[in-house]
Amino acid sequence: MGFKVIKENIMKTNDDIASGIRKTMEDNGVLMINIISSPGAGKTSFLEKAGPMLRKEGVSFEIITGDCFTSRDAERMDAAGLPVTQINTGNSCHIDAQLVKKAVQEIRMDGLDLVIVENVGNLVCPAEFDIGEDHKISFHSTAEGHDKPLKYPLLVKESDYVIINKTDLIEHTDFDVSFFENSIKKINPRVDILRISCKTGEGIEGFLSWIKERIKEKKENGA
Amino acid sequence: MGFKVIKENIMKTNDDIASGIRKTMEDNGVLMINIISSPGAGKTSFLEKAGPMLRKEGVSFEIITGDCFTSRDAERMDAAGLPVTQINTGNSCHIDAQLVKKAVQEIRMDGLDLVIVENVGNLVCPAEFDIGEDHKISFHSTAEGHDKPLKYPLLVKESDYVIINKTDLIEHTDFDVSFFENSIKKINPRVDILRISCKTGEGIEGFLSWIKERIKEKKENGA
Repeated sequence: MGFKVIKENIMKTNDDIASGIRKTMEDNGVLMINIISSPGAGKTSFLEKAGPMLRKEGVSFEIITGDCFTSRDAERMDAAGLPVTQINTGNSCHIDAQLVKKAVQEIRMDGLDLVIVENVGNLVCPAEFDIGEDHKISFHSTAEGHDKPLKYPLLVKESDYVIINKTDLIEHTDFDVSFFENSIKKINPRVDILRISCKTGEGIEGFLSWIKERIKEKKENGA
Repeated sequence: MGFKVIKENIMKTNDDIASGIRKTMEDNGVLMINIISSPGAGKTSFLEKAGPMLRKEGVSFEIITGDCFTSRDAERMDAAGLPVTQINTGNSCHIDAQLVKKAVQEIRMDGLDLVIVENVGNLVCPAEFDIGEDHKISFHSTAEGHDKPLKYPLLVKESDYVIINKTDLIEHTDFDVSFFENSIKKINPRVDILRISCKTGEGIEGFLSWIKERIKEKKENGA
């Protein structure tokens, strides 16, 4: 099985670079999160809303956003006055540590609290690649259906936080919140779950509390 | 760039197998389509609705459904009385020709008109892999936002047909149908676009006309 060996080598190289990134963040007391979702679940809309709220709370952050070819998400966040670095992955369906390393080199660490990585829209490969983050966040839309945690268990297993977006659409779909949340708890009992609507703004302050707690932990204890 | 060469070799092997599948379909006068979408865009719901309608029209078909780990979609279609073969890709984010070849070997070609492949939910890698299909279909949900064609141009370029599902949700979102359709036409002017709602059933008969025309072409002219 030649391919298996090749994949192991790719993963080993990736993990070595990820360890380097983790060390850099460690040395600077910076927390790093990796937000993973399907295309169109609302990661960019979320950052457009959460970014100014974070700033108001005095959190100093940088965003790294991944997309295959375009800079559309980066342009949206730039227009919202948020500090953002674009990664283009070409035909690759995920961000790897090498790409993040290049982006991190562009970022001033001085006085920084938080790096937010918005991954390429995909529930499979992004869950496999360590990019040096402290926490993976699994981000979902209610319009995708409540079966997604069971269909993409690796992502749920790897995540420390799950955000359910578009709660405003629940009444127009057959999305079963209890089924969704119970499926997550079965796969990963220790995970925290937050319900939000980027349309109404509902719930986003829950993210602020969660992330501020994680930043505090990081500054006090390291990773 | 060792990885580039490896990728070319993987693609070459894939394409050779895909050619074999295409030849098998050719020899049996069977049309094959490959439906590609984000997770939760509604491919399975669509087949649950369209399958019985196809049968009523006298179209003989088989479904091959791809998922990383589970058989949830296959079980849903089996419960709806539809003939389905499950492919599990493990941690792979797409179906390749080798997996399809195995599934095709399980299918009786005698009297068959159509093979429908439901790919793994992902807009990136499935667009790159030829699996021997006659037509790729790009399948979207209005809840994903109207920027998806511009963000995933390869899929649109590779597709002969675009289906927009969940039109029932348009009024509850900021989805701009004209922007979405114009973006598609800019990337691929020859593509046909269909609007449907699997919830209300609206528009699905448009797919029946399209697919029956393609089956007729295939029987008359080959590929």
